[in-house]
Amino acid sequence: MTTPTSDAAEMPLEAVVSKTFGRTVPESLSALVPALTSDLAEIDFVLDRSLTSTYPRLREAATYASRSGGKRVRPLLMAVAHRALGGTTPRPILALAASFQLIHTATLVHDDVIDHAEQRRGRPSVARAFGLPAAIVAGDYLFVRAFELAAEYPRSIILRCGEACADLAEGEILQETSRFDLTTGVERYYRVIEMKTAAIVSAALASVGEIAGMKPAIVDGLAQYGKAVGVAFQLRDDLLDMYGDPDLLGKPLFADLREGNPTLVTLEAYAHLTGGEKSEFERLFALHRKQPHDLLRLRELTDRTGAPERTAAAATAAADRAVKALSVLTPNPYVHLLELLARGAAERPF
Amino acid sequence: MTTPTSDAAEMPLEAVVSKTFGRTVPESLSALVPALTSDLAEIDFVLDRSLTSTYPRLREAATYASRSGGKRVRPLLMAVAHRALGGTTPRPILALAASFQLIHTATLVHDDVIDHAEQRRGRPSVARAFGLPAAIVAGDYLFVRAFELAAEYPRSIILRCGEACADLAEGEILQETSRFDLTTGVERYYRVIEMKTAAIVSAALASVGEIAGMKPAIVDGLAQYGKAVGVAFQLRDDLLDMYGDPDLLGKPLFADLREGNPTLVTLEAYAHLTGGEKSEFERLFALHRKQPHDLLRLRELTDRTGAPERTAAAATAAADRAVKALSVLTPNPYVHLLELLARGAAERPF
Repeated sequence: MTTPTSDAAEMPLEAVVSKTFGRTVPESLSALVPALTSDLAEIDFVLDRSLTSTYPRLREAATYASRSGGKRVRPLLMAVAHRALGGTTPRPILALAASFQLIHTATLVHDDVIDHAEQRRGRPSVARAFGLPAAIVAGDYLFVRAFELAAEYPRSIILRCGEACADLAEGEILQETSRFDLTTGVERYYRVIEMKTAAIVSAALASVGEIAGMKPAIVDGLAQYGKAVGVAFQLRDDLLDMYGDPDLLGKPLFADLREGNPTLVTLEAYAHLTGGEKSEFERLFALHRKQPHDLLRLRELTDRTGAPERTAAAATAAADRAVKALSVLTPNPYVHLLELLARGAAERPF
Repeated sequence: MTTPTSDAAEMPLEAVVSKTFGRTVPESLSALVPALTSDLAEIDFVLDRSLTSTYPRLREAATYASRSGGKRVRPLLMAVAHRALGGTTPRPILALAASFQLIHTATLVHDDVIDHAEQRRGRPSVARAFGLPAAIVAGDYLFVRAFELAAEYPRSIILRCGEACADLAEGEILQETSRFDLTTGVERYYRVIEMKTAAIVSAALASVGEIAGMKPAIVDGLAQYGKAVGVAFQLRDDLLDMYGDPDLLGKPLFADLREGNPTLVTLEAYAHLTGGEKSEFERLFALHRKQPHDLLRLRELTDRTGAPERTAAAATAAADRAVKALSVLTPNPYVHLLELLARGAAERPF
């Protein structure tokens, strides 16, 4: 067996942080870089190894999906949190961080099947590259490997993983029932992103606290931090889908509009439009096949409502909540980095 | 929460056995009926309870899938094996049996998406009834619940579940790469069914042995038994798909021919045909859209080769291997029932 390699393993931490959170590590925190770079490489090694077993056909699609995983938000946050709690070696969290990353990858693979997505991070999606059957099965396989990795932890951790996965699944269905419909409202939107995005980040961070033997207040603080970072990240994602740079994002803009997923931007725009513009916005949003001029018109109408600014403010507020949740931790440079990462989630350009 | 009910919970054991294995419980074993009936009801209770949590949208599709699960081969074999090893209460295997049944159900849901199957056991498939997104996500959710149920067992058991799931997934991909192609051969066919069908039955039975604290020879004997029963079951399934009674089966015939899955029957027929008939068989089998007369012609050509008889003999041989594997167990009425069930797997009419 050749030694597995991956993008992240070859990339210095600064690059990973800036790629993930649009932040460079400030000079004052540069002493953290070697340890965290090594932590991420070790997590990637465990992750890759779990996929390189005796299943040649699955391995190809699963490894492809894993390499397209890209940002590695969860492993990075988990590694930093583990160090913030005094961890001196990543060993206790290696399998768990790999597990959460695999769960995330599995859901991306299945999401791309559901959304008929052609691209993921500048490459063809698994469904596109390997076909629908392989994509469904490879997603299942990634879930299975994730749970095998989690099996070395106490039952409470496995159940935490499981509930986060159930949240993800329920969030996906809730989102499905909101498609092409702006009247489902902001409250349901937040429920969708809390279940689809934030629950798994929250569970990942809380698990790190639990494994480090922290008292419930700390575990809960980490859970709150993870949830708020997840929300900030998703709000920023939604904004970028409408206003980002497609080359930086590695995918075309307007996926949410095309798929009819209401986001905070579109819901805020809809709430603030009136008269003929409101009904035009509603009609265009409900179109199942939108033309380029429909998409641009939706963005033009959105621009006038202040919705992008309010969404950015909501992302910043979520980052504020994340930072506040960290107040239960004893301050140290790693805690400070967690704060910066929360800010980065709300402000990143891609 | 209302008390969950299910088909099996309301059905006496005789009915379950005859539904599953086409066998009635002989008079000499009727004393086993009350305990096993109660075991199955308890397993179903645990299974249903694991799906009735706070996820209303998932619950509906997942419960629908679970109720369509039908045969409950794995729970029945596990309950009988547990009693055969001296178990006096089903408690030690309840969550595990529910877990294996959920894994099976999850794979059926995803298989039906992959195969575009309209029906499953006389009802619309989950994909048909709830749509593709819900079917993919409900399958994921069933996997997750299965692993949560397995989490109360030692890591070795969770890994056994996991490897069986990985086998299933790899088997599915292996099958995909054999579609519409009779030249892939008998050896690959056996690899597919050993991975797709037999591995999970084998793991389920071995796990029962491990939980009962049996020595490796017994655990291995149960694994061999499970594998051989799985093969017998699948060979019979393949025959029934061509020669069964659609009303008894709850689905139309010829699914394998339509989906282009080589089975032992078709591979044997192909191997024994010659000349123009062989090339006609190969050409018809490779058609992606077969008409009714194509299907009937394929069966007619098959009839002349003795392939059905040879397939039936292979199923019987697998049942023989299953019975032989039980020789490591101390004979008792439950062991005798395991033998009868293996025979039933190879001979059942549906």
